[in-house]
Amino acid sequence: MEESLHAGDVAVVDADGRLVASAGDPDIEVLARSAMKPLQASVSLSLAPLGFPPAEVAVMCASHNAEPVHVQAVRSLLARGGVPEAALRCPAMRPWDEATAAVAPERLPINSDCSGKHGGMLSACRAQGWPLETYRDPGHPLQQGVLKAVLLAAGVASVRVGVDGCGVPVHGMPLRAVARIYARLAGSDALDGLRPHVRRAVDAMVAEPYMVAGRNRVDTVVMQVAPGLVVKGGAEGLMCAASPERGIGVAVKVRDGSPRASGPALIHALAVLGLLAEDQLGSIAAFARPPVLGGGETVGELVADFSLGWS
Amino acid sequence: MEESLHAGDVAVVDADGRLVASAGDPDIEVLARSAMKPLQASVSLSLAPLGFPPAEVAVMCASHNAEPVHVQAVRSLLARGGVPEAALRCPAMRPWDEATAAVAPERLPINSDCSGKHGGMLSACRAQGWPLETYRDPGHPLQQGVLKAVLLAAGVASVRVGVDGCGVPVHGMPLRAVARIYARLAGSDALDGLRPHVRRAVDAMVAEPYMVAGRNRVDTVVMQVAPGLVVKGGAEGLMCAASPERGIGVAVKVRDGSPRASGPALIHALAVLGLLAEDQLGSIAAFARPPVLGGGETVGELVADFSLGWS
Repeated sequence: MEESLHAGDVAVVDADGRLVASAGDPDIEVLARSAMKPLQASVSLSLAPLGFPPAEVAVMCASHNAEPVHVQAVRSLLARGGVPEAALRCPAMRPWDEATAAVAPERLPINSDCSGKHGGMLSACRAQGWPLETYRDPGHPLQQGVLKAVLLAAGVASVRVGVDGCGVPVHGMPLRAVARIYARLAGSDALDGLRPHVRRAVDAMVAEPYMVAGRNRVDTVVMQVAPGLVVKGGAEGLMCAASPERGIGVAVKVRDGSPRASGPALIHALAVLGLLAEDQLGSIAAFARPPVLGGGETVGELVADFSLGWS
Repeated sequence: MEESLHAGDVAVVDADGRLVASAGDPDIEVLARSAMKPLQASVSLSLAPLGFPPAEVAVMCASHNAEPVHVQAVRSLLARGGVPEAALRCPAMRPWDEATAAVAPERLPINSDCSGKHGGMLSACRAQGWPLETYRDPGHPLQQGVLKAVLLAAGVASVRVGVDGCGVPVHGMPLRAVARIYARLAGSDALDGLRPHVRRAVDAMVAEPYMVAGRNRVDTVVMQVAPGLVVKGGAEGLMCAASPERGIGVAVKVRDGSPRASGPALIHALAVLGLLAEDQLGSIAAFARPPVLGGGETVGELVADFSLGWS
């Protein structure tokens, strides 16, 4: 018996914006949420030439679990950027990682999954001599720079601008434009001067997948099992991937916003696209087909069941 | 901009099974999950004539937060039933209530939201001299008694039987049959010998709404603001209500299983049915239209937007 059903949309796009494949409505408008972090981090890196090592770059791109390794990397990048921890304006949160929260449940801005992104943004403001207090405002030069990069990478003339969960601007655009950003993260001349910084962000994510999310997280697990792929989720059921090898970007949106469905849906799309092989799928079965438990035993499973139409 | 969308179904039924009103597909098959707890508790009460006070009866009907008041009531009912706490076979869990979990995060069976139901079932087995170890098995006389009560109250010839999250049998049936159970919880001669026990369960829920769920929970809040209504949620986006005054039952299923949508949807349905007035809605606005936060500020809201068709 099918107890619950998630509907969703998938867009697979190349760097020129051509739709390669899709499911559902690839033009559905979405807020790009934390899927934008690699691009936001690229902008921060372009403004703060400070020699951040890959672990710190990866945590700038992260929605991290606030495990000790993540918090340590954020503190280290803040020190490198010359930014006090008190400047972080992301919401005070408990660590997402349950084992970490069990021993350190404090609600702190550094425990926000977004603290690396905010640390990168603050480091950029500090390096540029811009005000730190207002870095989240849409009119701040940093956020203006992010907006310019978003328009460039997405290949759109305009985006809707809202407020993300952590208080910085979030950008609304068609799902295929989000996929195009990922195709361009995979490598594109269209990014002009941002290109080396995008490459640095992407290389760091590939080199340090654990820093991008952490324990028991789809983004980390898929990057670990398929070296080279770039994977990043966002709130409200968004999951994205870039294949530098194939030069394509993939964006999945679960219409109801459920994170439990977006992971299996992205993995299924990657498998259909030939970007995950059988043995790779087998080693991440708990993420590809998460079990449903009853009394501690497996009594069902969550299955991604859709095909891609080819353009 | 609409970021995410939950689809769902609503059935409003009288005790004879007549469809009064609906939205979507009132015949969609669902697993009744914890919405069945008032009926399961009624069966337990019919088998264990032990003078449980209303707080203990209400916690038998509960998906509780494991706040101290809930755990205390479960321990008290276990003592009254002559059942050791170690006999509980519900999964070891952290308390749902965050403030409680912050000080007592232990995973214990008594902290399961279902521990009151299990305590009632065990008390019934003890009173009847039935084995305690196997009380979750579908073939156990207790579960056979529950199945008989479910068929009687739902007015169906058969149900699917699966395994609920806590390990006891769960029953699959059309949504309108779940609504009919609630119409009959509201008061019906069709329940034969079970009727006084159903009345006791329902009266306890109305008298002790905090015991049914707890802090920051829709079930509790709606019962507090609308005395007389019986409200109970279940996993995977199920929310049900009974109006003894009107003799109707209401069942809402969110198709994707999201609990964030089922509360506002039930509240909206109750308002459309005239069971919640404007001032009552105003006092539970945070549950009727939950805010969406960005940087700690309200930047959007979750809105139930559907109409009921009248039969």
